[in-house]
Amino acid sequence: MKNILVLGAGRSASSLIDYLLREAKDSNWHVRVGDYSLELASEKCPQSEYSSAFQFDILNESQRVEEICKADIVISMLPAKFHPVVAKICVDQGINMITASYVSDEMKALDQAAIDKNTIILNECGLDPGIDHMSAMKVIDHIRDQGHELTAFESFTGGLLAPDTDDDNPWEYKFTWNPRNVVLAGQGIVKFIQEGTYKYIPYHKLFRRTEQVHVPGYGYFEGYANRDSLKYLDVYGLRGIRTIYRGTFRRPGFCRTWDIFVQLGATDDTYKMEGVKEMTHRDFINSFLSYNPYDSVELKLAHYMNLELDGPEMHRLKWIGIFDNTPVGLDNGTPAQILEHILKKKWTLKKEDKDMIVMWHKFEYLDKGEPKEIHSTLVAIGDDDINTAMSKTVGLPVGIAAKMILNGKIKSKGVKIPIERDVYNPILEELSQLGFELSEKQVK
Amino acid sequence: MKNILVLGAGRSASSLIDYLLREAKDSNWHVRVGDYSLELASEKCPQSEYSSAFQFDILNESQRVEEICKADIVISMLPAKFHPVVAKICVDQGINMITASYVSDEMKALDQAAIDKNTIILNECGLDPGIDHMSAMKVIDHIRDQGHELTAFESFTGGLLAPDTDDDNPWEYKFTWNPRNVVLAGQGIVKFIQEGTYKYIPYHKLFRRTEQVHVPGYGYFEGYANRDSLKYLDVYGLRGIRTIYRGTFRRPGFCRTWDIFVQLGATDDTYKMEGVKEMTHRDFINSFLSYNPYDSVELKLAHYMNLELDGPEMHRLKWIGIFDNTPVGLDNGTPAQILEHILKKKWTLKKEDKDMIVMWHKFEYLDKGEPKEIHSTLVAIGDDDINTAMSKTVGLPVGIAAKMILNGKIKSKGVKIPIERDVYNPILEELSQLGFELSEKQVK
Repeated sequence: MKNILVLGAGRSASSLIDYLLREAKDSNWHVRVGDYSLELASEKCPQSEYSSAFQFDILNESQRVEEICKADIVISMLPAKFHPVVAKICVDQGINMITASYVSDEMKALDQAAIDKNTIILNECGLDPGIDHMSAMKVIDHIRDQGHELTAFESFTGGLLAPDTDDDNPWEYKFTWNPRNVVLAGQGIVKFIQEGTYKYIPYHKLFRRTEQVHVPGYGYFEGYANRDSLKYLDVYGLRGIRTIYRGTFRRPGFCRTWDIFVQLGATDDTYKMEGVKEMTHRDFINSFLSYNPYDSVELKLAHYMNLELDGPEMHRLKWIGIFDNTPVGLDNGTPAQILEHILKKKWTLKKEDKDMIVMWHKFEYLDKGEPKEIHSTLVAIGDDDINTAMSKTVGLPVGIAAKMILNGKIKSKGVKIPIERDVYNPILEELSQLGFELSEKQVK
Repeated sequence: MKNILVLGAGRSASSLIDYLLREAKDSNWHVRVGDYSLELASEKCPQSEYSSAFQFDILNESQRVEEICKADIVISMLPAKFHPVVAKICVDQGINMITASYVSDEMKALDQAAIDKNTIILNECGLDPGIDHMSAMKVIDHIRDQGHELTAFESFTGGLLAPDTDDDNPWEYKFTWNPRNVVLAGQGIVKFIQEGTYKYIPYHKLFRRTEQVHVPGYGYFEGYANRDSLKYLDVYGLRGIRTIYRGTFRRPGFCRTWDIFVQLGATDDTYKMEGVKEMTHRDFINSFLSYNPYDSVELKLAHYMNLELDGPEMHRLKWIGIFDNTPVGLDNGTPAQILEHILKKKWTLKKEDKDMIVMWHKFEYLDKGEPKEIHSTLVAIGDDDINTAMSKTVGLPVGIAAKMILNGKIKSKGVKIPIERDVYNPILEELSQLGFELSEKQVK
């Protein structure tokens, strides 16, 4: 019997744990799930011959060492900052480990030690990062194998609402992932290359520099650029490429309205506001507007942001309730924390809501000098507010990777991300059997 | 004979050292000036019976202790981060000290130790911070002494070009102070209170939320808000005031054009750009614009920023040379460093240029319920590119403070700023004898 230790039983772990429990009997696994909340862990992982739940505190050193040492593989779904704590013990003990998070510098530093211990620490193995790497590398490797020259790579992923879900929601959006990360998304500098020129977009212009993409069968999306695309030059081996651009999808109109929050400074997380206890939604917005005794908050905002009073942006803002005289309901907070709290009131999934994941890559290349183009698309729809498309597409590749490592199908060692054939091929293959397949289309 | 030690002989120290040397004989002082560059120190402070210059390295521990111990008072004109290093030795040895910089937390922590040693560490004793505190507190104390209620305080300072200086310069501006600080000015959050409501302006809106102020005899200025005005509620004892706003003056039109750099992201200091060695001014600007094979950089910028191609903003940008195919001339740099380097080519004072300092306060108060208003104004014009108004207004109050402390006219102890009568009164009095007087005018 192999012991699988899952640390963290939050929103992102549901589909992962379900997958592991389904496989446990046939594979002769024991799945042990630890969370700070025993109740949450037990709910996601009921006691059985093949499974157990326990209360787990990552800050408890003796507990974390003891639990990790009992495992054959560890899956950390904890907040990303705790991954290196887990990884150090794993490397020490020669125990394989998987996360769905970006490789931090601290994690990267463990590479040689992991190799020396014949161990793999596989990161970025969820959706984005995760399936995006695997599905992109599959096509990139294929283009290279044929001796063609890749000239442009663009990639977008979005976590959205499925069509016809929550029809009166003019944002066509709810939180399906860590709301805090959604509110802070895009802060810092954005870098990419377009036609051989390095390009930079500051945060306060990001949501106005969108690209429109049509995904056949699903309509139009708008994409805004995502952090530092340049680092993928080395990760994917693309030095010399003319265009590289990674982005996030939203439904058309979202970004222009979200930009109003950015312009106001309502997503700032660097300082605490004054008088939060007595603050209403309307006060919150008014704090970012000039003083004027005669005009309404609506008029001041419309004028400041150059909006039509009856236009779609004002409609979205009214719908989300920011002009309401409702108390925020926090004792203190940064603008970003307060905005998150206000948005959650309308953007929390209801039981019957279905979310949707859309991933779309575009590859341009030269076949003996002739320009060619491939699009690769994944669309996944959730079942309900727990079994979301987000939870499945994050959790399943992690679960599959765990199986592949336990079965010896993944042989790489060290601190890795899933960009090598021996890693991405078996994972993509099983994902496709489970119904999560990227459709590739030669469009030119 | 009293020994005065001046550390740092940079741009800001010229008028200070001149003042000290003028006073040295009558007051029986020896003025000793140390700088990392012996040449600079000797140039500013020629050897005499009353003065000497020496090579000084703040990182050399034994030298700094030895030099400070020989002094009766130390004036630190070093970069602000070194002040606490100097202050710790001064407090240890019970030696008084003066700076023209903001009190850091590290400095504040020395307060009790300084009091115990019967020592004063007087900070924020230049222009802004410095004369602004003193001249404001003088009026505020006067209004309070009469039992009136202060309802609003606004304060602006600007370092600009004097009228008719460099007439073809459409910015009416050159660097008269640390260029790096000018490029980074306004980053971080701006907070103030307007009519009883807390207001916040993010950096990317700051240069479009300006106020126009008319200064009789000198024309119109535009002011943008300066950092956290709220901290002056406690510093000046103004809790409960309806309006508090501190700002920086520029000539009309400056801010709207500067805002273009802000919007582009050209003042970002958080990342190094790619390919700086080969970069021209024009490439630099183009890095922040969308790719488009057909349009010029000028047209792309005008369209992105909604500017008229023949309008005043484009005129200022062309004048400063940002569309030129001139190499930047740096090997690497952040956008802010590159922008600073480009701006210096046109914004460095010529020998015959005269700078100008404008400080303007507005006080509104209730005199038995009746609204009253006082304006207080200081305008100073420089002589040339060395004896600038900036150097005088920063250096003279520091020099005067040194004299007052040596003469026993300032009796306060601890880590102080010049907001107490026994400090600001003698300094303002001598400043006025030297021709730097704030004119106060009851306008209502």
